Amino acid sequence: MAVSSLLSDVPDAPGISDIADAALRIKGYAVYTPLLESPALNALTGGRLLIKAEMLQRIGAFKFRGAWNRISRLSEDELGRGVVTYSSGNHGQAVAAAASLLGARATVVMPSDAPAMKTENTRRHGAVVQTYDRTTESREEICQEIADRNGAVIVPPFDHPLIIAGQGTVGLEIAAQSTALNLKPDIALVPCSGGGLIAGCAIALKEQFPEIVIHSVEPNGFDDMARSLESGRRVTNLNGSKSFCDALLTPTPGRLTFDINSRLLAKGLTVSDEDTARAMAAVFAHLKLVAEPGGAVALAAALSGAIDCRDKTVVVVCSGGNVDASVFAEAIS
Amino acid sequence: MAVSSLLSDVPDAPGISDIADAALRIKGYAVYTPLLESPALNALTGGRLLIKAEMLQRIGAFKFRGAWNRISRLSEDELGRGVVTYSSGNHGQAVAAAASLLGARATVVMPSDAPAMKTENTRRHGAVVQTYDRTTESREEICQEIADRNGAVIVPPFDHPLIIAGQGTVGLEIAAQSTALNLKPDIALVPCSGGGLIAGCAIALKEQFPEIVIHSVEPNGFDDMARSLESGRRVTNLNGSKSFCDALLTPTPGRLTFDINSRLLAKGLTVSDEDTARAMAAVFAHLKLVAEPGGAVALAAALSGAIDCRDKTVVVVCSGGNVDASVFAEAIS
Repeated sequence: MAVSSLLSDVPDAPGISDIADAALRIKGYAVYTPLLESPALNALTGGRLLIKAEMLQRIGAFKFRGAWNRISRLSEDELGRGVVTYSSGNHGQAVAAAASLLGARATVVMPSDAPAMKTENTRRHGAVVQTYDRTTESREEICQEIADRNGAVIVPPFDHPLIIAGQGTVGLEIAAQSTALNLKPDIALVPCSGGGLIAGCAIALKEQFPEIVIHSVEPNGFDDMARSLESGRRVTNLNGSKSFCDALLTPTPGRLTFDINSRLLAKGLTVSDEDTARAMAAVFAHLKLVAEPGGAVALAAALSGAIDCRDKTVVVVCSGGNVDASVFAEAIS
Repeated sequence: MAVSSLLSDVPDAPGISDIADAALRIKGYAVYTPLLESPALNALTGGRLLIKAEMLQRIGAFKFRGAWNRISRLSEDELGRGVVTYSSGNHGQAVAAAASLLGARATVVMPSDAPAMKTENTRRHGAVVQTYDRTTESREEICQEIADRNGAVIVPPFDHPLIIAGQGTVGLEIAAQSTALNLKPDIALVPCSGGGLIAGCAIALKEQFPEIVIHSVEPNGFDDMARSLESGRRVTNLNGSKSFCDALLTPTPGRLTFDINSRLLAKGLTVSDEDTARAMAAVFAHLKLVAEPGGAVALAAALSGAIDCRDKTVVVVCSGGNVDASVFAEAIS
């Protein structure tokens, strides 16, 4: 069935034209990242893996696409009031970078246990970082207070049509790159936290390849999207789980992202941190690239056997590479 | 002065047409690697750095270009007898991969202290690895014995017109990529061991940018090219030095590579292993890429101040990314 029919009862869902529009808007600002292949990774999985290398994106993760697509549309008056957001790290860097390029002030509400590299990079792009305790405080509330106080525009990390459309350019590029290789992917594996990246990718990929099967991938214990897809309603992660995938700890799918994903995705997959560390080591050894934990879960699903890739063409999104040296060193050792 | 005039008294030197011919030949087999830029690296040096990312090349280093350019020209009879080479690692992997693609047997003579990853990868491409002691045995002699015994064709690692022309495609791509960005590089920094990569790059870059200043970069204690350039004749490294740049330990420049380099290069630069480790960490943090020690020396020269990059456009060749996890983990920590 056509994507537009599948999403006909989701009023705010971006369409393929919104993603194409975002692609024009990010051109010259975002990196058109390569779709890479490794004979060694193919041999390990028995399939043909097409790796979308978003660690090579501006700010080291896909998040710049959505942030730029939203912030570059603000009026001069809005830019003058500045922007504010909450983020585990990559969206914060993306908002800081986009705001800086557009001459706007940015405030980013980040968890106090965010990787040092992400906090530092956010500050280096000129943003003010305000930390909070992830276990006791609400980042949405802190963000709203700041917006109320100084009139700053809130740039949500995933649950917004323009953010989803921006992240969807990842899928649009994959569709064009696969087609240029004369390949029709059977499966797409996409890391999932709030669900904006996979929602945008699903719209773009299903438009070009209606039969593609798309799986979200989450760390064990943070499988709110997998469980939400299964139960047909948004559920929240239980407290007490731990994972080194700092980018994938969002407790609940977004309203809009869930409405889209529940119509376009197959079942959600989960991986252990050990699987993810092995995937980071494989990216290091075979692609000479740096994947952060949250960026490596989709490959972890392919390598761990959470999904059978034999004789399939499989798109694997590696969504980011912002990882502290000590974490990376341990993962590859 | 035109490159052809500068090299008119070097009869075997490849010309720009040989490099263009090699570029056609490697197309579809080698990766056309990206020329990357990082605002953070630019800020650290005060210049505009254009990073040629050869760790993304097939087999993880530039060496595939030259090996393919040579081996793909062998006759069926020659391919049937197989190929043999000696290599610190990357050329061995390249010969093994090219021979395997062309259905030829390959034997690679490698030092017993080569990184495990390089030995394993060479074997994985189907080559027979014969180890030798780098301090007491002559790899050229072992290689010659094997060729005499079974008729295999020797594929030299650098001192051959077709190898130099193949590596020169790195420079040809950089020239095209810089021109597409409307940039005219002032300086090129290229890692140097036997001198094949830099000789080929110098021919291609000087053809397009006659005023470009090209520096070889070597590890301290293995600066045979720098000292040879200075004294006007080929000199050999003193015994007893140590460096973790395993790809750059060739004791003496090649005859042909020195004849070319002595006419086209400015003075040679050297860097410490500490400088190189810091450059590897910078590539990890800012480009999300894996550079091996020998692949990072050119960036090390820019970051350490061995060359002043302020207000200059500087081409930096990152020549490879084949490094054992333990070495990489220590370098970035």
